[in-house]
Amino acid sequence: MKTTMRGLVKESAGPGGFVLHTDLPIPEIGEDEVLLQVRCTAFCGTDLHIWEWDEWSRRRVKAPFIPGHETVGVIVAAGEKVTDRRVGQRVSCETHIPCGECWFCKNGMPHICKNVKLFGVTQDGAFAEYAKIRADCTFPIDDDISDEAACMFEPMGAGVHGVEAADVAGKTVLVSGCGPIGLTAVSACRVFGAKTVIACDLFDEKLAIAREMGADVTFNSGKCDLPEEVRKLTGGVGADAAIDITGAEKAINNSLKSVRAAGRLVCVGLPSEKVTMDLTEDLIYREVSMTGVSGRRIWGTWESFAKVMKSPWYKLEHVLGGRFRLEEIDEAVRQIRSGVPGKMILYP
Amino acid sequence: MKTTMRGLVKESAGPGGFVLHTDLPIPEIGEDEVLLQVRCTAFCGTDLHIWEWDEWSRRRVKAPFIPGHETVGVIVAAGEKVTDRRVGQRVSCETHIPCGECWFCKNGMPHICKNVKLFGVTQDGAFAEYAKIRADCTFPIDDDISDEAACMFEPMGAGVHGVEAADVAGKTVLVSGCGPIGLTAVSACRVFGAKTVIACDLFDEKLAIAREMGADVTFNSGKCDLPEEVRKLTGGVGADAAIDITGAEKAINNSLKSVRAAGRLVCVGLPSEKVTMDLTEDLIYREVSMTGVSGRRIWGTWESFAKVMKSPWYKLEHVLGGRFRLEEIDEAVRQIRSGVPGKMILYP
Amino acid sequence: MKTTMRGLVKESAGPGGFVLHTDLPIPEIGEDEVLLQVRCTAFCGTDLHIWEWDEWSRRRVKAPFIPGHETVGVIVAAGEKVTDRRVGQRVSCETHIPCGECWFCKNGMPHICKNVKLFGVTQDGAFAEYAKIRADCTFPIDDDISDEAACMFEPMGAGVHGVEAADVAGKTVLVSGCGPIGLTAVSACRVFGAKTVIACDLFDEKLAIAREMGADVTFNSGKCDLPEEVRKLTGGVGADAAIDITGAEKAINNSLKSVRAAGRLVCVGLPSEKVTMDLTEDLIYREVSMTGVSGRRIWGTWESFAKVMKSPWYKLEHVLGGRFRLEEIDEAVRQIRSGVPGKMILYP
Amino acid sequence: MKTTMRGLVKESAGPGGFVLHTDLPIPEIGEDEVLLQVRCTAFCGTDLHIWEWDEWSRRRVKAPFIPGHETVGVIVAAGEKVTDRRVGQRVSCETHIPCGECWFCKNGMPHICKNVKLFGVTQDGAFAEYAKIRADCTFPIDDDISDEAACMFEPMGAGVHGVEAADVAGKTVLVSGCGPIGLTAVSACRVFGAKTVIACDLFDEKLAIAREMGADVTFNSGKCDLPEEVRKLTGGVGADAAIDITGAEKAINNSLKSVRAAGRLVCVGLPSEKVTMDLTEDLIYREVSMTGVSGRRIWGTWESFAKVMKSPWYKLEHVLGGRFRLEEIDEAVRQIRSGVPGKMILYP
Repeated sequence: MKTTMRGLVKESAGPGGFVLHTDLPIPEIGEDEVLLQVRCTAFCGTDLHIWEWDEWSRRRVKAPFIPGHETVGVIVAAGEKVTDRRVGQRVSCETHIPCGECWFCKNGMPHICKNVKLFGVTQDGAFAEYAKIRADCTFPIDDDISDEAACMFEPMGAGVHGVEAADVAGKTVLVSGCGPIGLTAVSACRVFGAKTVIACDLFDEKLAIAREMGADVTFNSGKCDLPEEVRKLTGGVGADAAIDITGAEKAINNSLKSVRAAGRLVCVGLPSEKVTMDLTEDLIYREVSMTGVSGRRIWGTWESFAKVMKSPWYKLEHVLGGRFRLEEIDEAVRQIRSGVPGKMILYP
Repeated sequence: MKTTMRGLVKESAGPGGFVLHTDLPIPEIGEDEVLLQVRCTAFCGTDLHIWEWDEWSRRRVKAPFIPGHETVGVIVAAGEKVTDRRVGQRVSCETHIPCGECWFCKNGMPHICKNVKLFGVTQDGAFAEYAKIRADCTFPIDDDISDEAACMFEPMGAGVHGVEAADVAGKTVLVSGCGPIGLTAVSACRVFGAKTVIACDLFDEKLAIAREMGADVTFNSGKCDLPEEVRKLTGGVGADAAIDITGAEKAINNSLKSVRAAGRLVCVGLPSEKVTMDLTEDLIYREVSMTGVSGRRIWGTWESFAKVMKSPWYKLEHVLGGRFRLEEIDEAVRQIRSGVPGKMILYP
Repeated sequence: MKTTMRGLVKESAGPGGFVLHTDLPIPEIGEDEVLLQVRCTAFCGTDLHIWEWDEWSRRRVKAPFIPGHETVGVIVAAGEKVTDRRVGQRVSCETHIPCGECWFCKNGMPHICKNVKLFGVTQDGAFAEYAKIRADCTFPIDDDISDEAACMFEPMGAGVHGVEAADVAGKTVLVSGCGPIGLTAVSACRVFGAKTVIACDLFDEKLAIAREMGADVTFNSGKCDLPEEVRKLTGGVGADAAIDITGAEKAINNSLKSVRAAGRLVCVGLPSEKVTMDLTEDLIYREVSMTGVSGRRIWGTWESFAKVMKSPWYKLEHVLGGRFRLEEIDEAVRQIRSGVPGKMILYP
Repeated sequence: MKTTMRGLVKESAGPGGFVLHTDLPIPEIGEDEVLLQVRCTAFCGTDLHIWEWDEWSRRRVKAPFIPGHETVGVIVAAGEKVTDRRVGQRVSCETHIPCGECWFCKNGMPHICKNVKLFGVTQDGAFAEYAKIRADCTFPIDDDISDEAACMFEPMGAGVHGVEAADVAGKTVLVSGCGPIGLTAVSACRVFGAKTVIACDLFDEKLAIAREMGADVTFNSGKCDLPEEVRKLTGGVGADAAIDITGAEKAINNSLKSVRAAGRLVCVGLPSEKVTMDLTEDLIYREVSMTGVSGRRIWGTWESFAKVMKSPWYKLEHVLGGRFRLEEIDEAVRQIRSGVPGKMILYP
């Protein structure tokens, strides 16, 4: 086996792109780790934050390092204490590396571990030919899931997690926002037995795709009074649950007003600023609940998502944006910044 | 039986107090109603809104009418279809008069009935010698509960309802706000088995009373970093649940930051303005839930509150503000406006 | 409109079949009732009990009367107080006629109403050209659901109810018994997002149909150690939930042993005799839960079932046994007794 | 420090008592263990099984070994990796030593760990001057809890666990069986806010103690029709929940019939034989749930129990049977076998 590899490096603490190196050492694994030969890795909004070196990155990242965490690869080596993974297995990776010791880890919530480490953020990641990760943070991929689909577990999983938290079976559910995560959520609502799936967005093209991926009814929330339309559709009652993917203040408030009394709003999208709400009318008088979800349940959400991926509702082509080589990273980022929709996938 | 009675009347649609009339007709009851001889009636914030004729009142109230809804009285007549109440019974009244037909009424949530009517707001109430109400909106009062305690079911019930929604048994619970409703909530937390009850307020005197009524730990939230103190107290984890009684933006945000990841904030206090929150950090990353409660579960909360009232933790003297005759209404309102704490009770 | 109709009558209190009458008066409706022109009505196990006049029937039924309750028809007249049904609407009927007043009705559980009356059992039913029923006990049928499918809401609904109670989304679920109700449950598990659906029965032919209707894995429970097979399939853990349709002691115990610790068994099938269980090993040491469901949630289960019917997994032909005219009732019953599988449908 | 200690030994695989040895080696601790100087240890039904060498013991125990697991002691040494326990701390011990790796451990249910080991059963225990145990299986004891009370955490904890599972706040709860565990459950129902606590037993003396420890109403189930009495008491509805401590078939069935439709039976007592039930009438028609609890939630139940112990309702004197020296073990066992009630405590 060769000892060096190609990979992208964030070279220093400050704004600036990722640079291709061709002679990086192949990582040496610890006793509980596996070494992956990377198949492909998607580019995340987080990677852009690191690129631009915003506040969030400054607090977490130490350069130089190899970014990239939405990945799929084949195990080529396993540490001596690894028992339930084997060389040759194809796996995807959970970014959240839980401590296993805190109150949350011990109570079935490792995804909100208090001492969480982040693959591709606080340690080297997968924009490279090889990557190492703790074996128990890998998820084996079934043969009928393609490499490019497998890249989506991590980035789109939060949408499936939101659907789980909304407990959609038999319910009328509003999904607000029809980008890749929202579309994934729409198809997951279908797969998990929602009675009626309503999708909304500001762009009619996206709504057309939402209908293809399982929405029964769609509304352009820029062109109608959304809560009023949802009430009309539900005999004056309102939606049983809503899932916000946008993180936008106006959308969050619209969703809150669209759910029925004693209904539930699940927040997936991360607002970039504080959000102002009419708690009295929208939450308290009507006994509405609002809850956030973060990341993916380990491994519940992954298993659920595998089911969604295999259903006819999930259409990868609508979620995928473009394919690039590592050395084409600048072009991939340029397209993202120019608003090309869908995930960009990098091949080593 | 005499045919006229004394009572306070809101005489016209506009700002202005309640005027004592001495020759009001005693109400005639319908087939499903009861006539109460009023023992006493507490003065509610809502009554002050009607007095001042704010937006809320303008939308709901038609003058002239008799206000007052936090009441206790003895049944002196019952309509022909009333089977489970009898003359001689002492009862308190639920202000929310549900329709019995809507989706919420049929699913065990009549307290958030879509077509709710309001005793003492949309129909005549109890600042009078007699009052009528639908029989199924009355709650029989055990002999060991005094008239003045019985007046508190309605106004303080929301605090007990908040404690029910926070599911406090075995948990560390923060109660924010130690006015009469907050103090009631503190004692209810004790009665329903909270592991640790933390109370906070801006006034040290109120915190002293909170400790008397069941708080294990108190913090003056104006003099400390509350979330930090709560974390210290809980081994870095945070409170399992918080109950906001204040409706104040800063307090709500403090409570949100004080609950642990996957914890719950129950909102009881009604913010008078919109509230701005950091959903990303406080709700979404940490998977916190936020839920509102309104009024009282019928009759679950009433039964729970009866239990609280009979416990040694509930101390009526700390909840009660003053006693007045109907004709002293102006003085009662003057005291309320000048900040005298506790509920004011009016005797007919 | 004509004033007499054809219909089957259980003529007297004692064993004996249903007799065709041709001059029965068409029912006169009350102010809250509707008159249905019956399209078709399925024959229920309960009808056989009434035919044979067993203990259950003796306690509930007064002869002479018209049996039949699994029906679909078109509204041809509506009482003056009926507002949300209209002449011309096609509807199916809920057999459980709730009182609307008891604790269960007021808490969202009218299907277990304490004072329930039974359409076609304690009052005249639908083995006739016309039938009357309280309007709020009818469920409007979408145009894309056939008459014969609509007959199945009532009899097969308990299977869907069982799936609701098992909370199957993302779970490994065992369905025990693959008659018409079990097959319906299998397809409902698929529609509501179970991760893996395991079906078992004693007959391989039924298992083949179960696979067609959505089972991922099937076991002939007469030819294997079922709990052992289920454990093997689930990495030694056991199924998250099981749904018993059989009511058979051995099957119930097998299901109980097949669910994982802290899992849940939902009982749908009614044991004809008492059941003996090893509570210590199967329920207590492993903290397993066991719960019964009865009838259908009104109308939650009906709406869920409509969704199942419209899915590709539900295949009516496997649930339907035969078609008959009212005058062929003896032949229909002969076939049922001889073991012909599937529901028998009677046309007036 | 001395190197030998006094302790009781089960000398060989077969029936026969525990023998006092005076020169046992003091246990050597591993890196994650603590050494306790034992204060006192209660005698468990399990110890009697080991004494008598029944089937259960044969499958689990390897003699010779030191039994005893319901214990309290002071930490006198701690392994190098122990960080959150310290020498000098007084602790009680959880018998269930979970693996930390299985599905149940990782989902907040270590008390039903699939690979559980048992302190004092599968490894040496605490009928001795010193005992060692994994540090994370110890629970620090507050100063206001006596040694003899601290011995009760383990044996009586299952009763508190049952109360937790019955979710008693605001509910009418039946506790069946008023031995030490049942009495503990009665007081826990009080502490966790049950609306009405009903206790039943076959002995009037025990019912008198139950009333002292918090029961509102008691029934001698041998002298009345219990389900009928419970229904009378609850306006015909039935108890919201029941907790069976007896493990007796008749009592379990009585409890099942006493809970209301959609209510819950929690099984704590372990039936020594299979149990026969009328699932059709008692569970399925009425949608009742039945669930088992085992051991204690780690550490939720322990924290709850500490609260119960500190309440005025819990009266240790009614739970405690007698005090003995290790060398008096034969007399202690003689008293247990002769039916002396309450826990027997052994001092080293």
